[in-house]
Amino acid sequence: MARVTVDVMLKPEILDPQGKAVEGALERLGLAGVTSVRQGKRFDIELDGEIDDARLALVHELAGSLLSNPVIEDYRVREVLQ
Amino acid sequence: MARVTVDVMLKPEILDPQGKAVEGALERLGLAGVTSVRQGKRFDIELDGEIDDARLALVHELAGSLLSNPVIEDYRVREVLQ
Repeated sequence: MARVTVDVMLKPEILDPQGKAVEGALERLGLAGVTSVRQGKRFDIELDGEIDDARLALVHELAGSLLSNPVIEDYRVREVLQ
Repeated sequence: MARVTVDVMLKPEILDPQGKAVEGALERLGLAGVTSVRQGKRFDIELDGEIDDARLALVHELAGSLLSNPVIEDYRVREVLQ
C-alpha cells in the first residue's frame, strides 16, 4: 500500500480572508507575534500496491486539475514513507 | 521567524463525504487502485521570533479548540525547520 499527501494552498499573491480571520483570532486568544496565517486543504490518498513514476505523474496531473484550481492555488505532492 | 503547520483531519471513524467524492473522481479520471481519500485542512502559521515550549503549548491548545473541532477532528502540529 502506498500513501500520498497532496497539500493545496492559495498562491502567495492571492488574498486569504479565512487565514486572516484565523490570524486575528489566534492573537486575540493570546498567541502573540503571529505574522501570517494561510489556510489550505490537505488530501490523504491511499493506493493499492506500489507507486511508480507513471502513477505519480498521474497524481501530479490530477492534483493540478481536480484537487486544485491552478489559477489561484499551488499544490504539492508528497509520498508518505511507511 | 518560526513556522508551524497545523493539519486538521476528520477522525478515522467519522464519515468523509468530500473525501469519498474525490476518491470516486480520481478513479473515474484514471487513477486505479485508490483505496481511501480523506480531506482535511491545513494552516501555515508564521510567528515572530523563536518558538519556546510555552508558545508551542499554546499553539497546541488553540489547534485543539479554535482550529479543530475535537469531537470530530484530530489535529497535528508540526514545527517547520527553516
